[in-house]
Amino acid sequence: MIRIALDCYGGDNSPAANIEGAFEALKNLPDLELILAGDEEQIKNLVAEEEEKRGVRYADRISVIHAPDIISCSEKPTDAIRHKPESSMMKCINLLRTDPDVAGMVSVGSTGALIAAATLRIGRLEGVMRPTFCPILPTMDGGIVGICDSGANVDCDAYRLHQFAVMGSVYMKNAFGIENPRVALLNVGVEAEKGDMMRKEAYPLIEGNKNINFVGNMESRDLLSGKYDLIVCDGFSGNVLVKSVEGTAVSLLKKLKGGIMSKLKYKIGGLFMKGLFSDMKEMLNYQKYGGSILLGCRKVVVKGHGSSDCVSVAKCIEQAYTAQTNNMNEQIEKLLSE
Amino acid sequence: MIRIALDCYGGDNSPAANIEGAFEALKNLPDLELILAGDEEQIKNLVAEEEEKRGVRYADRISVIHAPDIISCSEKPTDAIRHKPESSMMKCINLLRTDPDVAGMVSVGSTGALIAAATLRIGRLEGVMRPTFCPILPTMDGGIVGICDSGANVDCDAYRLHQFAVMGSVYMKNAFGIENPRVALLNVGVEAEKGDMMRKEAYPLIEGNKNINFVGNMESRDLLSGKYDLIVCDGFSGNVLVKSVEGTAVSLLKKLKGGIMSKLKYKIGGLFMKGLFSDMKEMLNYQKYGGSILLGCRKVVVKGHGSSDCVSVAKCIEQAYTAQTNNMNEQIEKLLSE
Repeated sequence: MIRIALDCYGGDNSPAANIEGAFEALKNLPDLELILAGDEEQIKNLVAEEEEKRGVRYADRISVIHAPDIISCSEKPTDAIRHKPESSMMKCINLLRTDPDVAGMVSVGSTGALIAAATLRIGRLEGVMRPTFCPILPTMDGGIVGICDSGANVDCDAYRLHQFAVMGSVYMKNAFGIENPRVALLNVGVEAEKGDMMRKEAYPLIEGNKNINFVGNMESRDLLSGKYDLIVCDGFSGNVLVKSVEGTAVSLLKKLKGGIMSKLKYKIGGLFMKGLFSDMKEMLNYQKYGGSILLGCRKVVVKGHGSSDCVSVAKCIEQAYTAQTNNMNEQIEKLLSE
Repeated sequence: MIRIALDCYGGDNSPAANIEGAFEALKNLPDLELILAGDEEQIKNLVAEEEEKRGVRYADRISVIHAPDIISCSEKPTDAIRHKPESSMMKCINLLRTDPDVAGMVSVGSTGALIAAATLRIGRLEGVMRPTFCPILPTMDGGIVGICDSGANVDCDAYRLHQFAVMGSVYMKNAFGIENPRVALLNVGVEAEKGDMMRKEAYPLIEGNKNINFVGNMESRDLLSGKYDLIVCDGFSGNVLVKSVEGTAVSLLKKLKGGIMSKLKYKIGGLFMKGLFSDMKEMLNYQKYGGSILLGCRKVVVKGHGSSDCVSVAKCIEQAYTAQTNNMNEQIEKLLSE
């Protein structure tokens, strides 16, 4: 049995989407056990409703841990983790800290609080300087690319970048079956000598690690090209990168949609192309890859998007499950000790 | 008369597009005078051809300065500027340095060499720590947004960010007539306390400057929203930002094009929507705004895209012309001294 804790609050569609996602994951993964953190009465009622709706019962695979409080995204992370021990997020964190049988957790709540709590309360793997986020984006050739770090480490150095390369490589292989992931360093040009001081220092560190399939520097315009499996960057520029891809894609599709509605002939054209637009929207739906894993913690932590629906919550749970069953953390510790 | 030097080499379409662009600008701006730097014989022949083609002569407004050498983009900037004094770029730079009557220059050649040469040979305005690039992107509401810096300063600090805000503000007002430009700091979240140490230090500096209309932090996903006129960032993340918007837009339109060709019904739909796709492509054509100005030099320097055609070369020349006629540099010096 793989036991995972699910924070049932904090998302736009919480707790309903969380409970539905839990049932979806339990259906797909026979040896999964879930601990749902939230107001006991509310969660139990929602579970009963879902059981009724689906006509299944997972009585021995679901348990509820009473957590009546919620950490909101507007709260200061360090305050939240200090003053809200009864929150659903902190109850999960404490469970991971104290119960060796609980492998990991999933939350769609406050990112800042989750990083802080995971780092301070669960602790880091042996040798890890700081945990890092590694979200996944779809590429134009139908593949995926991981971006590590995407915001957990806004102040960074070359040694951390090197660790992101190690941890991200293990993750891309472990979670997505990519053998020998092609790792690139985000930079302002592809030539080896490009970049700021941090990049110039990180380049030889990453290049010199025989466990990393380092393919050199890359420019952000090539992110979606399919030429790379993992992009290594500091949390600040990684955050800029991920959000600008998202923002540009959303803006363009919105503009296209607005344009289609502006003239009759475009509307007609739009009808012919309906399937294509759905395909493109689906291709850009990065939530289908689950959430962003927090690499480098002693337990598996997956952060889902705040707007997660049932499907993406289920994906996040599966992500945590896969990381645990493939012994991701053991491999990270092993490679970092070399 | 406003005298501007034009580097005729270094672009994908050089020197032909440069000469055509020169004629276009001379047509539009009656008190413009151009000094064309390139191989004297070649340039004079191209000018003669263009005169024939257009049936006009600008004999007293065009002069040629012999510069047989070319700096390529693959050359190391500092080597290039040291060892190629006969190159078209260095001839322009030297002209700006020595001739007080030459107001500025335009080049579509090596970015690195241009920054290095402009900074080292032309020199900075009083009070400027380092010159900065400020390219322009189109926003989704039909407006524009400037990004300062976009790559000239990969290693940065809070004081430079503050100067970028001052110089970029003057530029957006001066070159595009935007009164009281809305200035935002690129960050990982909109809240005032967000960011790395550099951003936390820069925020109060920019906020405290009464000459800047500072609207706070912004996230990269809102770049094209039309809510901001100028984005302040370090050169590394600015470069990531600009190139990822460009890359995402190009990737999506390519994907859409590929999709349209994949099925007959999509092809039919595509025919109906032809005008719309052209409009979108035109909207994304950032070259129509000219090149990227290098703010903070003692003379006006405009860097055009390497792929510049006749229209964008002409736009770059007009950009340099406008900056000079509006006394941009005087205003920058004045505001930086306050």
